[in-house]
Amino acid sequence: MVAPLKVGIAGLGTVGAEVVRQIEQQSRLLAARTGRAVRVVAVTARSKAKKRDLNLQDVIWAKSPLALANDPSIDCFVELMGGSGEPALSAVEAALRNGKSVVTANKALLARHGVRLAKLAEEHGGALNFEAAVGAAIPAIKTLREGLAGTEIHRVYGILNGTCNYILTRMEQEGLSFAECLKDAQRLGYAEADPSFDVDGHDTAQKLAILASLAFGTKVAQSAVYVEGISSIKPEDLRAAEELGYRVKLLGVAVRTKTGIEQRVHPTMVPRSSSIAQVMGVTNALTIDGEGVPPITLVGPGAGGAATASAVVSDIADVARGLHIAPFGRPVKRLRKTEKAPMMRHEGGYYIRLMARDLPGTAATIAKRLAQQNISIESIVQRHPNGAPEPPQGRGKRNAKAASTLVPVILITYATSEDGVRQALAAVQNDKVITGRPQVIRIEKN
Amino acid sequence: MVAPLKVGIAGLGTVGAEVVRQIEQQSRLLAARTGRAVRVVAVTARSKAKKRDLNLQDVIWAKSPLALANDPSIDCFVELMGGSGEPALSAVEAALRNGKSVVTANKALLARHGVRLAKLAEEHGGALNFEAAVGAAIPAIKTLREGLAGTEIHRVYGILNGTCNYILTRMEQEGLSFAECLKDAQRLGYAEADPSFDVDGHDTAQKLAILASLAFGTKVAQSAVYVEGISSIKPEDLRAAEELGYRVKLLGVAVRTKTGIEQRVHPTMVPRSSSIAQVMGVTNALTIDGEGVPPITLVGPGAGGAATASAVVSDIADVARGLHIAPFGRPVKRLRKTEKAPMMRHEGGYYIRLMARDLPGTAATIAKRLAQQNISIESIVQRHPNGAPEPPQGRGKRNAKAASTLVPVILITYATSEDGVRQALAAVQNDKVITGRPQVIRIEKN
Repeated sequence: MVAPLKVGIAGLGTVGAEVVRQIEQQSRLLAARTGRAVRVVAVTARSKAKKRDLNLQDVIWAKSPLALANDPSIDCFVELMGGSGEPALSAVEAALRNGKSVVTANKALLARHGVRLAKLAEEHGGALNFEAAVGAAIPAIKTLREGLAGTEIHRVYGILNGTCNYILTRMEQEGLSFAECLKDAQRLGYAEADPSFDVDGHDTAQKLAILASLAFGTKVAQSAVYVEGISSIKPEDLRAAEELGYRVKLLGVAVRTKTGIEQRVHPTMVPRSSSIAQVMGVTNALTIDGEGVPPITLVGPGAGGAATASAVVSDIADVARGLHIAPFGRPVKRLRKTEKAPMMRHEGGYYIRLMARDLPGTAATIAKRLAQQNISIESIVQRHPNGAPEPPQGRGKRNAKAASTLVPVILITYATSEDGVRQALAAVQNDKVITGRPQVIRIEKN
Repeated sequence: MVAPLKVGIAGLGTVGAEVVRQIEQQSRLLAARTGRAVRVVAVTARSKAKKRDLNLQDVIWAKSPLALANDPSIDCFVELMGGSGEPALSAVEAALRNGKSVVTANKALLARHGVRLAKLAEEHGGALNFEAAVGAAIPAIKTLREGLAGTEIHRVYGILNGTCNYILTRMEQEGLSFAECLKDAQRLGYAEADPSFDVDGHDTAQKLAILASLAFGTKVAQSAVYVEGISSIKPEDLRAAEELGYRVKLLGVAVRTKTGIEQRVHPTMVPRSSSIAQVMGVTNALTIDGEGVPPITLVGPGAGGAATASAVVSDIADVARGLHIAPFGRPVKRLRKTEKAPMMRHEGGYYIRLMARDLPGTAATIAKRLAQQNISIESIVQRHPNGAPEPPQGRGKRNAKAASTLVPVILITYATSEDGVRQALAAVQNDKVITGRPQVIRIEKN
């Protein structure tokens, strides 16, 4: 009989408590699947006194995460405290230096220190598993790290933040504003009191940096991620998307281009028929495009205690089985430096919504500025305030009030460069034929 | 430097040839990911003379699959011949007896001899990997075998046959008959000249048997799978499904019930909003329902040379890495006998379409027969030949011709037993208030 795997858990919040529960309740299942017993032997948390409804009487309480990481009675250190700094960082480093395996759900830590931690794991022989860091129980990490081993990956993209997808879904389905939906999300516990980490795209960026490393064999580089959040999205954008056959999602996209690897997080128009467009509410999804292989999409809960704990326990099970994979899918010395593709050289289709002054020559001015940047227009819709769309050409009659009226103009471009779009729109703004900032949403084709 | 992994491939059809190509073209990627070189050193195929556009000059041609399996110069035997019998069976057995690892895409072989082969792998220390046997490059096997290790699985279900999903998609989108769509599928190479293995559900049944074993820790038991194909589905069923908020898919469903494990393949009404309902054309998908965890759905190509080869090469990479997992996720002695839940005790909602005689008392007779079996009706739609639906109650006026008219009646039941539905419908047929066979489609809730 193989000796039991002795697990120490740092952090007993929702996920940590659920991990303890799953390991206890599923002990027979785990033993059958891994060939050895898995036991939580030690824990640590900020407050020992807090009521947790857990059976911890035979478990050692370590006095700190670091003490737990240095405790010789554990084989596997499970870090569920979060945060890219202390106490998580030192504790994980210590555990790895001690040759222990580490399981963590901490995307911030990995996005910032992933390479360094992978190197420590490699040098000291422990595993470093982090399925729960991206997409909770969706097997995103395992699929990219172990699967598709002989397939060159061109692009990975996904809905990696449930808060944003919940807000966009509500906005689309009920025609509500961003602010209203955010408030509801906060009330329901889907968004934090300070929602900026989620809605400004930083959570997605951390996850994307990890996925890009696994997909392309590059060093994790969160600073290489271009980030835009969803707070500028208006119900009218979602309505226009629907009419044009798209849906708006906050995507994290990592793609190999001729100028390097693009990593970008921004609201994105995706074809309504694509798998990713069907993903609604707090659900997450990841699509992987490999060479010659039709896309693979993984859909499921991206957060939640049980789903996250399920991923953590899976990682622990892999440690118990003795599976040992390089944390980022290949040895650290084989990870290349990320060649960051400059966002200004991004090429793709664009959705542009302008509030144009209803004056003779406005359409001609806009068209000219786009043409100067070699931007080809796939479709253009100009909507008169009464709601009926009217093409910008052929507007003959016009009453005296028209000069002060604003008309939304919606353009879809063929593939063009980010730089060209920005220059064209700056020129249009300069021409004073529009008011306010143009709304620009990138289009991602499947 | 670790010695290269020496691979022998039996079968050089579309998939085999593509595996040779991927291993050659992605040799650096594979070495980076697995830490060792992967080389095809020997092959065998029915015809050596056939033109294949492969570089095989440094490769040994074995005189038979068995000879290849016994060749001491290979570490990993890749079986891509197909078929549950010879020559695949003996060759795979020989390779495992020789302590080699085996990678196969052969669902028929695994569905029939899976337990026996797993036992051989266990006794002699080789791996037995078969990601490509179900859903090609979709990581279905890896997710069930290694992921979710601490999560009790309640149900797995999926679209596991691209031919059927292609036919149902075309039928739905274009209102065509089964026969017309089958003919098109054959013309496009999506269906075989003899399509029965696909359209009658047997292909799905073999894959389901493998998935059920992994999900529930039971011995593969293809004979325990209840199977119905899609040839009875009519465009009017698909139209009714749409009106009722469903879509019809051929699903393989394995679910733990109080009477045992149900394994069933049949046309199924799934809610239009579910992830599985969005899967169109030849695409496959698998949904996994774990305890307390929202469903996880994996979507992607279920067939095709490149996608299948990608899965095979991933499995070879796992062998190269030295990953070693019990073929069915736990040791053979821990696999339980499948307690087959009898189909007659299946419980769920039903869609029933009847061609009723338009006579006074017909509706009352049908209602009575259902009530006698304690079947509650969620909705009932009776459609007069002019097309406008009319509830069966309150039909006062009726002209003389009505007696000979047939009216389609569509019922949706609340959860009830298979046995009850069959008995009720037999009684209704006996009452001679309907003509022809009732159409019955089970409903699967998400």
